[in-house]
Amino acid sequence: MTKNRYVIEPIGIIRSKLTDLADAPMQGIEGGYEAWLELSLQVAEGLFGIKAGDHLIVLTWLHLAQRDTLQVHPRGRQEAPLKGVFATRSQDRPNPIGLHQVRVLEVAGQKLKVAPMEAIDGTPIVDIKPVLSQKNDR
Amino acid sequence: MTKNRYVIEPIGIIRSKLTDLADAPMQGIEGGYEAWLELSLQVAEGLFGIKAGDHLIVLTWLHLAQRDTLQVHPRGRQEAPLKGVFATRSQDRPNPIGLHQVRVLEVAGQKLKVAPMEAIDGTPIVDIKPVLSQKNDR
Repeated sequence: MTKNRYVIEPIGIIRSKLTDLADAPMQGIEGGYEAWLELSLQVAEGLFGIKAGDHLIVLTWLHLAQRDTLQVHPRGRQEAPLKGVFATRSQDRPNPIGLHQVRVLEVAGQKLKVAPMEAIDGTPIVDIKPVLSQKNDR
Repeated sequence: MTKNRYVIEPIGIIRSKLTDLADAPMQGIEGGYEAWLELSLQVAEGLFGIKAGDHLIVLTWLHLAQRDTLQVHPRGRQEAPLKGVFATRSQDRPNPIGLHQVRVLEVAGQKLKVAPMEAIDGTPIVDIKPVLSQKNDR
């Protein structure tokens, strides 16, 4: 087993009206919000080629997650049998990376307006990728 | 802009016959290999509920990537115009997290046999999630 550790330096931050985790939908498809991805100026040129209408996968660091959780009751229902976190989308997991499939509504400098986004205001952004299809460039 | 940094501790490692990046297909759908996901014993109970036939997203840390690259020629074609790395699936990017959609072929203790996997032998595994659909549990 590797003992290496790797350091993530966020490339930006989510700006959203959604500020309370208790109000957050469990998945964007269940009612996410419009949000701005505010990229750091240092990585802004990495956005070159992204335009309104594009479908992207946004990777976030779910900074409020419990990293020592390995099993959960799916969707927080105590009556549901425990499941391994890797069999669920629980935010609580050893490396709490969130995946969010969004559409770009607007590009303004190093900011992208996207929807739907269920991560709360202040969530760090780790990476952005195009949605994978046979046509996408590597 | 947040100045926080976050530490990833890999949950396991890819075991594959694919050992040379030069032989790796650009995407799993372009001809990935069968591979074993060897999870650390400490996180093994997080696999509870995963079974053969499941569709998963495996997140890896592409440890050979260049983290200071912000623009690339898509698919390495020098004649293609430069594009921002966030508009591509290039492994070279500030936080080189790979996304791999796979099917589970076999579960053996804390090991999962999956395909197709284009990441090379020794690539650290960061997270595992079910493929998202309306039916999936959070």
